[in-house]
Amino acid sequence: MKNIALIGSTGSIGVQTLEVIREHPDRFRLVAMAAGRNIDLLIEQVKEFQPQIVSVANEEDVSTIQQLFGDRVQVYFGAEGLCEVAVHKDATFLMNAVVGSLGLIPTLEAIKEGKDIGIANKETLVTAGHIVTSMAKEYNVQLLPVDSEHSAIFQSLQGNRKEDIERLILTASGGSFRDRTREELVGVTVSEALNHPNWNMGAKITIDSATMMNKGLEVIEAHWLFDIPFDKIDVVIHKESIIHSLVEYCDKSVIAQLGTPNMKLPIAYAMSYPERLEFNQEKALNLWEIGTLHFEKPDVERFRCLQFAYEAGRIGGTMPTVLNAANEEATKHFLEGNIEFLSIEEHIEKALERHEVISHPSLDHILEVDKETRAFVRSRIE
Amino acid sequence: MKNIALIGSTGSIGVQTLEVIREHPDRFRLVAMAAGRNIDLLIEQVKEFQPQIVSVANEEDVSTIQQLFGDRVQVYFGAEGLCEVAVHKDATFLMNAVVGSLGLIPTLEAIKEGKDIGIANKETLVTAGHIVTSMAKEYNVQLLPVDSEHSAIFQSLQGNRKEDIERLILTASGGSFRDRTREELVGVTVSEALNHPNWNMGAKITIDSATMMNKGLEVIEAHWLFDIPFDKIDVVIHKESIIHSLVEYCDKSVIAQLGTPNMKLPIAYAMSYPERLEFNQEKALNLWEIGTLHFEKPDVERFRCLQFAYEAGRIGGTMPTVLNAANEEATKHFLEGNIEFLSIEEHIEKALERHEVISHPSLDHILEVDKETRAFVRSRIE
Repeated sequence: MKNIALIGSTGSIGVQTLEVIREHPDRFRLVAMAAGRNIDLLIEQVKEFQPQIVSVANEEDVSTIQQLFGDRVQVYFGAEGLCEVAVHKDATFLMNAVVGSLGLIPTLEAIKEGKDIGIANKETLVTAGHIVTSMAKEYNVQLLPVDSEHSAIFQSLQGNRKEDIERLILTASGGSFRDRTREELVGVTVSEALNHPNWNMGAKITIDSATMMNKGLEVIEAHWLFDIPFDKIDVVIHKESIIHSLVEYCDKSVIAQLGTPNMKLPIAYAMSYPERLEFNQEKALNLWEIGTLHFEKPDVERFRCLQFAYEAGRIGGTMPTVLNAANEEATKHFLEGNIEFLSIEEHIEKALERHEVISHPSLDHILEVDKETRAFVRSRIE
Repeated sequence: MKNIALIGSTGSIGVQTLEVIREHPDRFRLVAMAAGRNIDLLIEQVKEFQPQIVSVANEEDVSTIQQLFGDRVQVYFGAEGLCEVAVHKDATFLMNAVVGSLGLIPTLEAIKEGKDIGIANKETLVTAGHIVTSMAKEYNVQLLPVDSEHSAIFQSLQGNRKEDIERLILTASGGSFRDRTREELVGVTVSEALNHPNWNMGAKITIDSATMMNKGLEVIEAHWLFDIPFDKIDVVIHKESIIHSLVEYCDKSVIAQLGTPNMKLPIAYAMSYPERLEFNQEKALNLWEIGTLHFEKPDVERFRCLQFAYEAGRIGGTMPTVLNAANEEATKHFLEGNIEFLSIEEHIEKALERHEVISHPSLDHILEVDKETRAFVRSRIE
């Protein structure tokens, strides 16, 4: 029995993590969970999974939960509450399914307590990859990727030697606007951007897909998770999202992981690794039904965010922190209807241009740069 | 340094095995080799690789070799010579690259001497899979697949548990006649059949590709190599031969091995396993240059040999021996211009129909059935 702590329980990954727990009660038990503002769904989840502790974003929601469940559950809130859930003494595994760099501190705290981490929250690795990975090494905990691409790479690395890796190849669907020219992106609406062709995901990651910043963040995430230099990480557009990613080895052999687009598979693999869980209710991949798989070179003029991510990643230091914070802030404002789609990349570009990099930043540097970058982007919008 | 014995040195796989040895003189040394009738090429190979012993098919060729090399090399011939090479005391690895079931006895002898086997000779496993695999287990030797499909499956199994395997999926190019209807197969010539779209291989396997018996033999080979029942082995037509085969697991995750169609990769992987050798001179796979991959369901009415192989495999006992022997004999006669292309399957069908299966056959049973089947097919032709 593996005891699970889950932060981000009401988001897309959180809900599917709970589905995996529900379907495998013999293997997993939820002991602690944290959500944000979706209190109605959280209440349903607490009823069903009966964790020992719960955390919410805002203090005013604490009493709602407490009144319903009394002393059957301890209720926390805010950043501290998130950490309480992440380090819960009975958990051996933390599923980090929050969105954005707020997942960083609870992840570091959980690592210090020796928990293995299922990492669905790529911003944590983008903003402070060197700290997270070196601390994971120090405390001998596993970082298990949950993103479908990184799970695919992780699966394609099994049974192989690190020194034989030649190249990682991340596949990208191209997002909601993959068939549009740059000119056709002018004035696109939020609901058009949220209409992803293959994956049903949360709002932020769906916008990141449309700008292809999502793939850029994934390149940086892959760099940290697998300790591979940026010039050995490629991106290929693959609109069917059937090949989830690939690894090329020194003998030119390429290993890939394929499947129907379904996040439950990488979630379950991270939770059950190195074993695999049976999924009888899921449809198997049928290549002859699919018929054709397509591949294209990504157009970095068209998708400038991908290029920004490579550049920020190569520069390193606090540059990826700026990339991520500017993207989080700009994307939020796009979702709120405050800025145009094409302004997202413009705000990110300006934030990167003005930043003076700190090499080997401490956690305090990172938190400060994150905050300061968000304020800069806000100041340009408001 | 790994000392290699090679049987079938002048065939397509043999020549490429020697290329791998040539390119990695720090890792491999050829100590013994056997060829058939291509004495000119064999002489070149002996000059370059200086094995301790050599074997040829026919006694009359012994003196040619002996005169050239004197006592620098011992020369053998025939079936016994093949075994001498296979069991050479200095070799730890036998590359079985002969064509047809004549590879069986030397393989069994090498297993008894504790040599690991690189198995490019699928007929050995088709005709006597239960004996080869149980003996490999008994003597604790590794059977390392060299067929590109089985190497792909073997690579896709690394780091996974056998109990998690759900299905093996072999890809098939469809061979020289994949775009022809059954009617268009009437009267095709030998040279048309030998014109394979993707792979440059020996004559027998190229004809097997055209009839799709090759894929049938591979299904039986996969059954024995990976100990998987026939109803968990599928075939999908994939005309680009880029995905070399796939494994589906119980969580519906599919792992695949991809690469440009190049036999040196699986040859080298079998020889260097679990490490991979660097191949800087080989072109890396570029998915966006390839652009599109296609998949189709195989038409078993159109490719009857594939169906015969499944049926023979499921019946088991001596039935696969009959399948293989009838196919070897009929294909030989097609290559010699004695029969029509579509008669190949007809001769196989007749041989299977009349055979009374021996379950759990001994080696003697197998050799007898093999001989008797060939005689039956010959009697129908001559």
